[in-house]
Amino acid sequence: MSRCYTLEQIAEIVGGTVRGDSRVKISGVGDISEASPEQITWVTNAKYAARLESSRAGAALVASDFGPAPMPVVLCDHLDRSVARLLGAFARPVSRPEPGIHPTAIVHDTARIGPDPAIGPHVVIDAGVEIGASCVIHAGVFVGRDTTVGDGCEFWPNVVIRDGCVIGSRVIIHANAAIGADGLGFYFDEGCHHKVPHVGGVILEDDVEIGACACVDRAKFGHTVVGRGTKIDNLVQIAHNVRIGAHCVLAGQSGIAGSTHVGSHSFFGGHAGVIDNLVIGNRVRVGAKSLITHNTPDDTMVSGYPAQEHRKELRKEAAIRRLPELAAQVKELLARVAELEAALNRPS
Amino acid sequence: MSRCYTLEQIAEIVGGTVRGDSRVKISGVGDISEASPEQITWVTNAKYAARLESSRAGAALVASDFGPAPMPVVLCDHLDRSVARLLGAFARPVSRPEPGIHPTAIVHDTARIGPDPAIGPHVVIDAGVEIGASCVIHAGVFVGRDTTVGDGCEFWPNVVIRDGCVIGSRVIIHANAAIGADGLGFYFDEGCHHKVPHVGGVILEDDVEIGACACVDRAKFGHTVVGRGTKIDNLVQIAHNVRIGAHCVLAGQSGIAGSTHVGSHSFFGGHAGVIDNLVIGNRVRVGAKSLITHNTPDDTMVSGYPAQEHRKELRKEAAIRRLPELAAQVKELLARVAELEAALNRPS
Amino acid sequence: MSRCYTLEQIAEIVGGTVRGDSRVKISGVGDISEASPEQITWVTNAKYAARLESSRAGAALVASDFGPAPMPVVLCDHLDRSVARLLGAFARPVSRPEPGIHPTAIVHDTARIGPDPAIGPHVVIDAGVEIGASCVIHAGVFVGRDTTVGDGCEFWPNVVIRDGCVIGSRVIIHANAAIGADGLGFYFDEGCHHKVPHVGGVILEDDVEIGACACVDRAKFGHTVVGRGTKIDNLVQIAHNVRIGAHCVLAGQSGIAGSTHVGSHSFFGGHAGVIDNLVIGNRVRVGAKSLITHNTPDDTMVSGYPAQEHRKELRKEAAIRRLPELAAQVKELLARVAELEAALNRPS
Repeated sequence: MSRCYTLEQIAEIVGGTVRGDSRVKISGVGDISEASPEQITWVTNAKYAARLESSRAGAALVASDFGPAPMPVVLCDHLDRSVARLLGAFARPVSRPEPGIHPTAIVHDTARIGPDPAIGPHVVIDAGVEIGASCVIHAGVFVGRDTTVGDGCEFWPNVVIRDGCVIGSRVIIHANAAIGADGLGFYFDEGCHHKVPHVGGVILEDDVEIGACACVDRAKFGHTVVGRGTKIDNLVQIAHNVRIGAHCVLAGQSGIAGSTHVGSHSFFGGHAGVIDNLVIGNRVRVGAKSLITHNTPDDTMVSGYPAQEHRKELRKEAAIRRLPELAAQVKELLARVAELEAALNRPS
Repeated sequence: MSRCYTLEQIAEIVGGTVRGDSRVKISGVGDISEASPEQITWVTNAKYAARLESSRAGAALVASDFGPAPMPVVLCDHLDRSVARLLGAFARPVSRPEPGIHPTAIVHDTARIGPDPAIGPHVVIDAGVEIGASCVIHAGVFVGRDTTVGDGCEFWPNVVIRDGCVIGSRVIIHANAAIGADGLGFYFDEGCHHKVPHVGGVILEDDVEIGACACVDRAKFGHTVVGRGTKIDNLVQIAHNVRIGAHCVLAGQSGIAGSTHVGSHSFFGGHAGVIDNLVIGNRVRVGAKSLITHNTPDDTMVSGYPAQEHRKELRKEAAIRRLPELAAQVKELLARVAELEAALNRPS
Repeated sequence: MSRCYTLEQIAEIVGGTVRGDSRVKISGVGDISEASPEQITWVTNAKYAARLESSRAGAALVASDFGPAPMPVVLCDHLDRSVARLLGAFARPVSRPEPGIHPTAIVHDTARIGPDPAIGPHVVIDAGVEIGASCVIHAGVFVGRDTTVGDGCEFWPNVVIRDGCVIGSRVIIHANAAIGADGLGFYFDEGCHHKVPHVGGVILEDDVEIGACACVDRAKFGHTVVGRGTKIDNLVQIAHNVRIGAHCVLAGQSGIAGSTHVGSHSFFGGHAGVIDNLVIGNRVRVGAKSLITHNTPDDTMVSGYPAQEHRKELRKEAAIRRLPELAAQVKELLARVAELEAALNRPS
């Protein structure tokens, strides 16, 4: 992060307007509470606006209707987008293979590599693979037979993509992820589990991102599908024949069991799970560590073990918290009723 | 899946008998609701039989006592087995290293490789390793010192098997799994955790299958053992000195903590966990996301957090669901008892 | 484990005093219930002392105040430390790359490697990397641009450490772990998630150990930090901008969400989770599979879903277990009150 910009230059990069001294020099970004006078910070949540008063930051990105601030600010119509651009401006050079194909990479004669590749050391690209334009394939990646890859993808080191998968454009797969391993499919006969061949593949549509050490299993037949723009975090498990719609987010260590279908724009918290063969709707929000055991309609927010509507889960938790009080009331009632009974039966 | 068979040929492959036109041509497999007239489907669950009526599939595999169907069918005595064979018949060619040892593989002078190997690029096989006949070892796999491997194994790309492990025959290990890493073992002294050497190894018995990005840690001493025919899914954690019996299934992201022993034919749902130093019996079924905190006898089905007998867990959940009603009843009782008390104390 | 020592030699290695025949020959270690007469065992927990009576072990390590035993023993002032040394004495030779840099490793011209390296086959070390003295870097490891590594580290095969990370001394990273992948950070605009650049890095301080297939994500800016001596188990997820203090232990498959800070000497059980942006104190103990949803002060023990003080969680569980009884009492009360009401209203 050794780059340095004037605030005026930053405003141009992020698409905003300076209020205050536009000549201020900024050489880095920092958290509102930790930024130094050479750094710029931002306030994306209005409730933290007051913290800017005590911040030592040299400047700040703020929403265009932001009130007075003790330092120069850049007013932004699309603050989140501007913050992303700001971070991009301070990005240091990232590890990327040299343009071309590294001499230690093993690319099969029948594989077709598009223009402007950057294929790193010890990569293996098997027979019949087709790779689009401008793909970055880091060291140690394996791409199996007949898999196709679109344009502008980046596969980080040691990613494994097995045979017969279909990867869209601008797909990012992080280190050590495994795409297209066999699903857990067996039939039980004579005391043993026998393997069911998984002859299907995996489709990752355009703009999908897959986290480090995440797994998307191949389908028994047909395809396991991750829809356009869906973001999957580290260590997530997507089982065979799952279909996930567009623009979903699955947080770390969540898992979707076999043949479950998920709509679009749904969100799964960390460690959340869904059992097999369910249908989860669009815009469903699933709380961290929840276990979904039933079909879930559009636009619901669920949590719990087993998961239910979040509102009901909160009521359940509240009722459980009141249990000791309830037990005390019942104990008291038992005593009072016994007394009433004694009084009634007492010869008057 | 560009192969094409007559229904007669399929019947021979799957071990069944055609009912209807055996000359029908089939070029693929499909789900009952999605199969096209060129595809074959199957009905393994009698309750979905009716769906065959509206299926467009050109043919179907069914149990030998299956009733009338709107398309030609293949009657099968062992339907699950026949479906597995059917899928195998439509399997496309899979990525496999060429026969022999790839020139970029590093095989130590003292390692012994059995007949008919297929060892891919950038594989590393260290000193003293012994590998049986007909093993397929994909690109980037590492096999550590003195590990022995039986016949007919397949290790997918970038699998790591460390030193001193014993791998049986026909063992399959999926991409990026780690076998034989050190267990989490430390002793605490003077404010720090100090490493306890893990001098044991891992035994994977015959016909074990290990999922992608799954981990089986080496033992502190002796061996961590996964029994014959046990199938472990993606992202599962098997800690040091665990012993798992034969023919178990552990679904994705489940975990067994240190020194716990599991019997045979047990099943763990996704995200299920077992704490350390327990004994779990044979034919135990553990619900998804359950946490087992006690020894568990043979033939039990458990679920919950903490886990208990599934029947009790269901009653617990039902009781919790009725809590608001119970609270309302108590509130009502308090009022009625107060009224009774007032009536009794009222000077009559 | 083919080495053989006299008990006298073992006493010297582990730092203890022999009681009994010091000439006994020991060729291995074994569990108290399984050790053979040629093996040595130990009793670290006084409540298992009685088991020594029936053990066939040829000798045992015990605490210095241990009572009579049926075999020769080594009395140890620091028993845990002595057991660790004992295991070390029986460690078999481990897979390690030859001293030097393997000819198939790709080390960038601008990378600086300290004295006494052992860098294995197919390793990739990118531009500007600095590696200290005596580091062991196994086959297939990737170290990204400008990352610095201290002295005496060991990275097991296929570990990926991305660009701009800072790794201390004596750090151990197990197979297939991923350090420095992008955090899950997006902003939502016009129906899509857009990537937020992650320009920060990861700091792993001295003596950190990271398990197999574990992930520590890079920070959005600044650093994700794992403090000195902290031990992270397999398949753990540490999200972007998390800070973990010194000497913590995180068991398998646990996860810490973005920007959460954890103090020192805290412990997380298997599958435990913490949501984002929390502050967890020092010496906090988190039960297996718990989900922390609130800031947690020093010296607390929490469990549950959602997590609360462990004492309260136990009371909650007890109250839930008594629910059926409570429901029965309420049912009975309803009947008795109805009877009382009838008696009172009865014309007397």
